[in-house]
Amino acid sequence: MVEVVALGEAMLRLSPPGYGRLESATRFEVVVGGSELNVAAALAHLGRSVAFVTKLPTSPLGRLVASTAREHGVQVEHTVWSSERLGLYFYEQGLAPRPSQVVYDRAGSAASTLHPRDVAWEVVLATCRIFHTSGITAALSAESLATVEHALRIARSQGITTTFDLNYRSRLWSASQAAQAYERLLPHCSVVFASAEALETFFHLRGSPEAAAEELCRRFGVEWTILTERSEDGGLRGSIAALASGRAGTHRSQLISFEIADRLGGGDAFAAGFIDGLLTNDLHLALNQGAALAALKHTIPGEFCTITREELSEFLAHGARQVLR
Amino acid sequence: MVEVVALGEAMLRLSPPGYGRLESATRFEVVVGGSELNVAAALAHLGRSVAFVTKLPTSPLGRLVASTAREHGVQVEHTVWSSERLGLYFYEQGLAPRPSQVVYDRAGSAASTLHPRDVAWEVVLATCRIFHTSGITAALSAESLATVEHALRIARSQGITTTFDLNYRSRLWSASQAAQAYERLLPHCSVVFASAEALETFFHLRGSPEAAAEELCRRFGVEWTILTERSEDGGLRGSIAALASGRAGTHRSQLISFEIADRLGGGDAFAAGFIDGLLTNDLHLALNQGAALAALKHTIPGEFCTITREELSEFLAHGARQVLR
Amino acid sequence: MVEVVALGEAMLRLSPPGYGRLESATRFEVVVGGSELNVAAALAHLGRSVAFVTKLPTSPLGRLVASTAREHGVQVEHTVWSSERLGLYFYEQGLAPRPSQVVYDRAGSAASTLHPRDVAWEVVLATCRIFHTSGITAALSAESLATVEHALRIARSQGITTTFDLNYRSRLWSASQAAQAYERLLPHCSVVFASAEALETFFHLRGSPEAAAEELCRRFGVEWTILTERSEDGGLRGSIAALASGRAGTHRSQLISFEIADRLGGGDAFAAGFIDGLLTNDLHLALNQGAALAALKHTIPGEFCTITREELSEFLAHGARQVLR
Amino acid sequence: MVEVVALGEAMLRLSPPGYGRLESATRFEVVVGGSELNVAAALAHLGRSVAFVTKLPTSPLGRLVASTAREHGVQVEHTVWSSERLGLYFYEQGLAPRPSQVVYDRAGSAASTLHPRDVAWEVVLATCRIFHTSGITAALSAESLATVEHALRIARSQGITTTFDLNYRSRLWSASQAAQAYERLLPHCSVVFASAEALETFFHLRGSPEAAAEELCRRFGVEWTILTERSEDGGLRGSIAALASGRAGTHRSQLISFEIADRLGGGDAFAAGFIDGLLTNDLHLALNQGAALAALKHTIPGEFCTITREELSEFLAHGARQVLR
Amino acid sequence: MVEVVALGEAMLRLSPPGYGRLESATRFEVVVGGSELNVAAALAHLGRSVAFVTKLPTSPLGRLVASTAREHGVQVEHTVWSSERLGLYFYEQGLAPRPSQVVYDRAGSAASTLHPRDVAWEVVLATCRIFHTSGITAALSAESLATVEHALRIARSQGITTTFDLNYRSRLWSASQAAQAYERLLPHCSVVFASAEALETFFHLRGSPEAAAEELCRRFGVEWTILTERSEDGGLRGSIAALASGRAGTHRSQLISFEIADRLGGGDAFAAGFIDGLLTNDLHLALNQGAALAALKHTIPGEFCTITREELSEFLAHGARQVLR
Amino acid sequence: MVEVVALGEAMLRLSPPGYGRLESATRFEVVVGGSELNVAAALAHLGRSVAFVTKLPTSPLGRLVASTAREHGVQVEHTVWSSERLGLYFYEQGLAPRPSQVVYDRAGSAASTLHPRDVAWEVVLATCRIFHTSGITAALSAESLATVEHALRIARSQGITTTFDLNYRSRLWSASQAAQAYERLLPHCSVVFASAEALETFFHLRGSPEAAAEELCRRFGVEWTILTERSEDGGLRGSIAALASGRAGTHRSQLISFEIADRLGGGDAFAAGFIDGLLTNDLHLALNQGAALAALKHTIPGEFCTITREELSEFLAHGARQVLR
Repeated sequence: MVEVVALGEAMLRLSPPGYGRLESATRFEVVVGGSELNVAAALAHLGRSVAFVTKLPTSPLGRLVASTAREHGVQVEHTVWSSERLGLYFYEQGLAPRPSQVVYDRAGSAASTLHPRDVAWEVVLATCRIFHTSGITAALSAESLATVEHALRIARSQGITTTFDLNYRSRLWSASQAAQAYERLLPHCSVVFASAEALETFFHLRGSPEAAAEELCRRFGVEWTILTERSEDGGLRGSIAALASGRAGTHRSQLISFEIADRLGGGDAFAAGFIDGLLTNDLHLALNQGAALAALKHTIPGEFCTITREELSEFLAHGARQVLR
Repeated sequence: MVEVVALGEAMLRLSPPGYGRLESATRFEVVVGGSELNVAAALAHLGRSVAFVTKLPTSPLGRLVASTAREHGVQVEHTVWSSERLGLYFYEQGLAPRPSQVVYDRAGSAASTLHPRDVAWEVVLATCRIFHTSGITAALSAESLATVEHALRIARSQGITTTFDLNYRSRLWSASQAAQAYERLLPHCSVVFASAEALETFFHLRGSPEAAAEELCRRFGVEWTILTERSEDGGLRGSIAALASGRAGTHRSQLISFEIADRLGGGDAFAAGFIDGLLTNDLHLALNQGAALAALKHTIPGEFCTITREELSEFLAHGARQVLR
Repeated sequence: MVEVVALGEAMLRLSPPGYGRLESATRFEVVVGGSELNVAAALAHLGRSVAFVTKLPTSPLGRLVASTAREHGVQVEHTVWSSERLGLYFYEQGLAPRPSQVVYDRAGSAASTLHPRDVAWEVVLATCRIFHTSGITAALSAESLATVEHALRIARSQGITTTFDLNYRSRLWSASQAAQAYERLLPHCSVVFASAEALETFFHLRGSPEAAAEELCRRFGVEWTILTERSEDGGLRGSIAALASGRAGTHRSQLISFEIADRLGGGDAFAAGFIDGLLTNDLHLALNQGAALAALKHTIPGEFCTITREELSEFLAHGARQVLR
Repeated sequence: MVEVVALGEAMLRLSPPGYGRLESATRFEVVVGGSELNVAAALAHLGRSVAFVTKLPTSPLGRLVASTAREHGVQVEHTVWSSERLGLYFYEQGLAPRPSQVVYDRAGSAASTLHPRDVAWEVVLATCRIFHTSGITAALSAESLATVEHALRIARSQGITTTFDLNYRSRLWSASQAAQAYERLLPHCSVVFASAEALETFFHLRGSPEAAAEELCRRFGVEWTILTERSEDGGLRGSIAALASGRAGTHRSQLISFEIADRLGGGDAFAAGFIDGLLTNDLHLALNQGAALAALKHTIPGEFCTITREELSEFLAHGARQVLR
Repeated sequence: MVEVVALGEAMLRLSPPGYGRLESATRFEVVVGGSELNVAAALAHLGRSVAFVTKLPTSPLGRLVASTAREHGVQVEHTVWSSERLGLYFYEQGLAPRPSQVVYDRAGSAASTLHPRDVAWEVVLATCRIFHTSGITAALSAESLATVEHALRIARSQGITTTFDLNYRSRLWSASQAAQAYERLLPHCSVVFASAEALETFFHLRGSPEAAAEELCRRFGVEWTILTERSEDGGLRGSIAALASGRAGTHRSQLISFEIADRLGGGDAFAAGFIDGLLTNDLHLALNQGAALAALKHTIPGEFCTITREELSEFLAHGARQVLR
Repeated sequence: MVEVVALGEAMLRLSPPGYGRLESATRFEVVVGGSELNVAAALAHLGRSVAFVTKLPTSPLGRLVASTAREHGVQVEHTVWSSERLGLYFYEQGLAPRPSQVVYDRAGSAASTLHPRDVAWEVVLATCRIFHTSGITAALSAESLATVEHALRIARSQGITTTFDLNYRSRLWSASQAAQAYERLLPHCSVVFASAEALETFFHLRGSPEAAAEELCRRFGVEWTILTERSEDGGLRGSIAALASGRAGTHRSQLISFEIADRLGGGDAFAAGFIDGLLTNDLHLALNQGAALAALKHTIPGEFCTITREELSEFLAHGARQVLR
C-alpha cells in the first residue's frame, strides 16, 4: 500500500537562531533533514503513503531521526540500525550579501555505509509506484553509489517509475566525480530533476533549456527532465518556475514568488509536488504543484514542507491570500 | 472622567514563534487581544482615559486578561465576572504566499454570554464622550448582538458619539447574517469604519468609494463613514490610506507605508487614532492619526499599539526616522 | 499485530515555563497529553505495538495531536475526525507549598462526543491482547461513558484483557457520579488501577489495602486490583510503591525514590509498565516495571514516558546510576 | 478609597536565566521590583486598594515600571515624573554554596531625588488606613531620608498606622548610618518589621527575641515589633516563622516550610500578609498570613507575590496540597 | 607587536528581542558594544593584532566586557580598573516607520572618568601603527575630551597614523559643543571619518562632498577625509558607498547593497575595513573593504563584525553568493 | 610568563535544555568543554596565566572553541590548526533515578590526530611551572597517547611539575587498555588525581585509601596521589572531600556540600583548585581549594568554573552565604 519509496540519508541540522553566526553560537536549533526524507515528508503531508529507507545509529540521535520521520507521516519500518555515527550538518542562515553556509559533519555516518544488500529491495518496493533518490546519497561513499544504482535498477526492473534529483553538492564531491556517477545512474531513471546550469556542467549540454533537457532524455532514455529556475534577489524574496521536457514536448509551470523564512528544502518540496502530480498522471498539475510547494516551503522554518492537500488546492485555485479569519 | 468606553470580547491569542506552523507547535506566545480592547489600549497609550466593558471568567486566564488591560492603562472596573470559559484563538503568522491563519476557539466564552442587563450602562457611560464597539462582538451570539444594540442605543440616547467598526469575520458568521445585523445596528452609529469592499458586500453600494460612503451615511443617518484601504504586497511591506465621507463632504489621509512585524491590530489602531482625533474635533487630524497609528502598529509585535502621544506627534511632524540616538 | 489498544481523549497541555503562574503567562509550553495516550506512548517506547482510539478535530491542532502520537510510535489510524474543538488544559506547575493547578478547558471537545458506534470495535480490537481505558474518559459526557462501556464489553466478549484506571478527577465530575459509573464499568474490567483512598471513597472499602483490593476483585469479578502509593514530600522528591491483590493473593513492588521534573503522567507510566509485564505474564515484573517507569517518568518533562526497553532493563538490573560516559 | 499607601523606589531587576553568572550573561530576565512596591503588589493581589508613591523617569523604562505596577493592581497616579535615570540592579541567583549576588546600579536614580514636597501628602494619604515604607528608601540619599521622615510624620499626624521595615542593605549604607536613621524614624512608626539580629546590630538589644522586641517598642513608642526568622539550608528549601511583640504581649505564627524558586521578595510578602491582617485587626491572622505569603512567595519567580485571597484562605485552611485537578 | 590601538568606552547594550518595545520588555538580549571596541573587534576578526584602552568597573559587568573583548580577539591588558559603574544603553530596534531608539544610561561611567594620565600612553602605543578613537569618547566628559586629545597628540608625536570618527551623537552633546571639540582634535588626526552632512553642520562646508572633504583636509592638515553615504529605504534594506578625498585626489568605493539584521555597528565596520586597508597602504582596497564590511555587518546580530579575512576576500573577489554547500 | 600549560581536546557539548531527553530534542545548548581546558579556564579565572595546547579545525566550530577559551582567559596561541572535524558530545542531564548520559561523537577529531611533533614543546613549556593533562586525552588514539607521553617526558626533563588526572572513560577505552597506558604514563607524573575505586581497578590497590595512594606513589615515583570522594544522593545535592598521600604523609580537605546545577566539570575544578595551591606550595590550601572549587562548580551551568580569586578566598574564609546585597 506504500505509494512512494525514497532512499537517502537523514541528518540533524544544527543552526544558531535567526541570523546568528556559527562561530558565536550558544544555542543550536535542531531540525531533522535530508533531501530524500524531505521529499517523503512533503508527500506524506499531502496524504500520500510513503516509506523512507536509510541506515541509522541505535542511539538517542538515531531514534530522534526516526521519530521525527514518523511524526511527519513517513514510514521507517525498513530502517537498517547500526552502530556508526549519525550524520550532522551545521547551518548558518545568511542574509545578503552574507551567504548561508553549510558545514557538513557526515563522514563515517551510518547512512554512508548502507550496502546494496542491507535492504530487501524486492519487499520494500513491492507495492510502490515511484522510487525516489538523489545525487547527494550517491555522493556519500562508493557503497552509497552502489546502493543507489542497485535500488534504481531493481525498481526499474519491477516497472516502477524512478525519479532522481541531481542535487550536486560541491562540498561532497568534485564535478567530475559527480558526472561519472550521473552517467552510471541516469540510464535507470524515469524522471530527472536538474537545472540548466547542471546540464551544462555535467553533460555539456548548452543550447536552450528545453533543447538541453530533451537531449538529456534522448541520451539516457529518461522520460522527463525537469528544470527548475529559482531567482532570489539575494535578500528575503525569490521566485521559482519550472519546465519539463521529454519526448512528448515541453510543459511550463507558472512563476511563483515567495518570501523566505528558511532557504533550504525548496527543491525537495518541488520534487514532492511534482511526484504527487505524476501519481495522478497530470504533468501540468505536477509542474504547478512543484512550483507551488517550493514557494510555500520557503516560508516554513525547518526542512520539511508541511502543506496539506487542502492548502495546496486552495493555493492553486485562488492564489495567495493574506489572512484567513 | 472616562472619555471613551469600549465594549467587546478579549481573548488569549496563542501563536507559535516566528513563522512556525500551528501543527508543529512546541511553544505558544501568549498575547491578549480583541478588536475593541485593542482600540481601548491604543487610546490609553495616547493618554486618553478609557474603560473596557466585557465578561471574563474568574480563573487565572480571566485575571490574565484583566491585568494585561490594566497594564496598558485600560480601566476594567466594570468587568462582569462569571464561570464560563475564556475565548481563545490560535494564530499562525504566514509569509507570502502562505496565508496567516486564525483558528478561533471562542464558542461558549464568557463574553459571548454578556446580557444587555449585565451592565449598568447609564453609570458606565456617564462621563464618556465616545462609545465604541464592533461587528465582531455582534457576531458572537444572539445575546451579544442584543447587548451591542442595547449599548449603542443608550449611548446615543445620552448624546454620546458612537463609533462602530464593521469588522466582518467569515469564520464567525455568514455575510447575510452580518448584513442583517448591520442593518439593525447602523441606525445607532455616529461613525462607521468600513472598507469599499464591505460596502459592496453588505449594502450593495458599488460606485466610487466616496459615493458609497456618502450613501451609507444617508441611508442610516451615520455622520461619517470611514473607509480604509490597505495594500500589502503579500510580503513584509504594506501601506494604508483612508477617507472619511459624510454630509460635510470627503476628507483623505496621507498614504503611509510600513514594514510588518505583526499583521493583526492595524485596523484597531486606525480606529483609535481616528477616535482620538474626533475627541479634538479635527477630522483631518483624525484621518492622518488613524493612518499613522495603523502603520506604526504593524511594526509592533502583539495586538496592542503602544505608541505614545509624543511619538505620534513626532511622526506626524517629521515623518519616519531611522535611529534616534 | 497491535498488542494493546487504548481509548481516551488527548489534549494540548499549555503551561508557563518553569514555576511561572498562569495569570502572568507570556508563553506556554505545548505538550500533548491525556491519560490513555500517555499509557500508549510509554508502551510504544518499550517497543510494544499500540493503537490509540480517539476523536480529533480536522484542524491544525487535531493534526498536532495525531502527529505527536505517531512521533512516539503510537498508531492513530482509527482516529475519528470531526469538526468540534480540541480539548485543552492549562497547567501551572507548583512548588511546595503552592499546589500545581490544572484548569480544564475541554468541554465540548471532539473526544467527548465519540459515540459507541463511531468506531468499528471488532476490527480495531481484532489482534490485540489488552484494551486499556480510564475513568477520565468515562467522565467526559454521557456518550463517553457509553462508549467506554461499549468498548470494554466488546473487548471482554472477544477474550481480551481489559485494564481500567479509576483516575478520579474532581474537576470533571462529583464523587457520587464517579461511583455510579465505576459500578457500571468494573464488571467488564480484568485489571483495575486504583489507590487505597479511592477504594474507600467510591466503594466504601476500608480495612487494609490488601483486603480492600481483594474485596474489590470479588465484588466485580476483577482479576487484579493494583494499588499504587505515592508519597511526595511536597517538594521535589517522592517515592512510589505498588501492590496487586487478586484471587491469587497479593504481590508487592519495590519502593522507588525519584526527583521531580514534571508532576504529571507518573500514574500512566505505572500502568504502562504494569501492562507491559502483563503481556509477559509476569506479575511481579509487572509491578516492579510499573514502579520503575513511574519513578523515571517524574524525571522527564512532558506527559510521555520515553524510557526504552534497554533503559528499563538496565535500571531494574542495576538501579540508578549517576552519569553514563 | 485607597486602603494602603506605600512609598519607595521601584527598579528593574536584570538577571541571567537560571543559575547563570552575571559575568557570562547573554540575556537578562527583566523584572520590576522594589521592597515597598512588592508589598503594595502583594496587597493588591489580595484585593486591597493600594497606591504606590515614587519618582520615575519619563522614559520607556519609567513607563515599564508604572505599567507593571498597574498590571498588578497597584495605583500609580501619584508618581512624580522627572528626567533622572531609573534605578537598576543586577541579580545573580546563587545555589549553595555559591551566594546570590545583588549588584546595585541605582545611584542618581529619579527615586533617590524625591523631595519631601514633591508629593501632596495630605491628599495622597487622605483615605488610607496604613502607610508603609522601609529602610531601603531611607538609605538612598539625604533627601530620601527626609522624605521618608516627612511622610511618616504626616501619616501619624493624620492618625494613620505606619509600618516600617528596617530592611538593612550593607551595599547601600554602613551599619552606623543606618542606626542613626532608624533612631530618627522609629518614633513615627506604629509597626516595625525586623529580625533578632538587626535588633542587636542597630539597637544593641540582645536578650531573647521577645524581650528585645518589647524593648524596641518601649524605646520608640512602637506598637508592635515583628521579628521574622527565616532558615534556609543553603539549598533549595527553607522555612519561616514570625513573632510579634508589643505592649499587649507576644504572638507567634506557625512555622512554614517552602521550596525556593526565587530568593527575593519573601520579606516583602511577609509584610503584605501582616498588613492585610492588621486591616482586619486580627494580629494572629496577620502573623500567619505573613508567614504563609512569605513561604508562597519563595515559589514564585520574580519579586511580586501574586497569591489571591482565595488561594491564601485555602492554604491557611487546608495547608499545602499537591495538584488541584 | 600590536598593530592598532583603539581608545573608547565599551558598554552593555540591552535590547528586547526582535522588534519588541522597551516599555514592554520582559527580557533583554545582552551585547557588548561601543564604537571603538567595535572597530577593534572587526580588525581582530580579520587577523589584526589590536589593543583596546578603556576604564572598567571591577564588577561582574566590567569582567563581562573584558572577557567579551578577549573572546573576539581584542587585547585588554591596558584596561584601567576602578569602582565606578559600567555604562549601559537600552536599544529598541525599530521597523519603518517606527524609528530605532537608543536610551543612554552612561552618565558617571568608569570610562567617562578616564584621565589622560591613567594610561602609560608611550608604552601602550609603542609598537602600533594606527591609533583610533572617535567623537563619542570625546563627548563623554571634559576629562574624556582631554584624554582623547592627549592620546592623539602623543600618537602623532610618535609618528603613528591617527584615525578619528566624528560619530556625532545628539543625545550626548549639542552640535556646537561637538564643533568646538572637533576644532581642537582634528589637527592631531591623519584620517577623519565623516559624512557630507556632518561637514556642513560642524564645519560649514557645503559644496560637493569631494570639495568639502578636501577643504577639511586643508583646514586641519588631515591626510584623508572619508565620507560614507548610507541609504536605507526605511525598511530592511540599504546600501553604502564611500569616498576618500585628500591632497592626492579622490577615490570612490563600489556601492554595496545589504539586508539588515542589526542597524548598529555598520559605521564601525566601515572604519575597520578602511583601517585594515590603510595597513597595506592600498587606499582603493581600504574603501572597498570598508564598504564591504559595513554591508556585511548589517547582516550580523550584535555590534561586532565577525567577518574573517577569508570571507572578506571571497566577497571582494566574487560578490555575494546564496548558499555555500 | 605562562604558569600552567594544559594539553587536551576541547569539544562542543550539545545538550537539550533542562532535563529534556536527547531523543526528543528541538534545541541544544552549546557549551565548550573538555577536561584539561576546564582546568585551564578555572585557573585563568583565579588569575593564573594559562596556556592550552590542542588541535582544532579551521572551521567556524574550531574558531568557536578558540574564542571561548580566550573569553575565559586561556591562551591558545599554540593551537595546531587542521582540516579534520571537531569532536562533539551530546549530553543529557539526568535526574535520579534517570542517569545523565554522554553520547560521544569524537572519533576522527582533529585533537585525536595531534602528533608528538606538531607542537614545539620546548618553546611552549619554556616558562611554565606546571604541565597538566589527563587520561581522556591518552584514550583518544595511539597518536594521542604518544603525544601525552612525549609532553610529560619533556616537561619532567625540564624540571616542570606534571599533574595527571586518570579520568577513566569507559565509552572511550577498556579498563585493560587504560591500565596499560597508565603504567606507561605515571612514571612521568608528579601528581596524580584519582579515586580509591580507580586505584583498585587499574592498579589492584585495595587496602585503605591512604595506603593505596601511598603505594601508588611508591610504585611510580609519583610525589602526591590525590583521591577525591564525591557522594551524591542521586538527586540535586552532593558533597566532596579529598586527601593527598605521598612520601610526606597524608593530608585531608574539609567536606563541602553543594547543590547541583550541572553535573560535569567538578573534578576538573578540583584539579584547578589543587594546582593553584601547588603554585603557592601550600598542600593543605591546595586540597581545600580543590574541594571548594569542585563544590562551587556544581552550581555553575556549563563546563567552566568561573569563580574568581576573591570569591574563592571569601568562601574559604567565611563559608557559604545566602545573598550578598
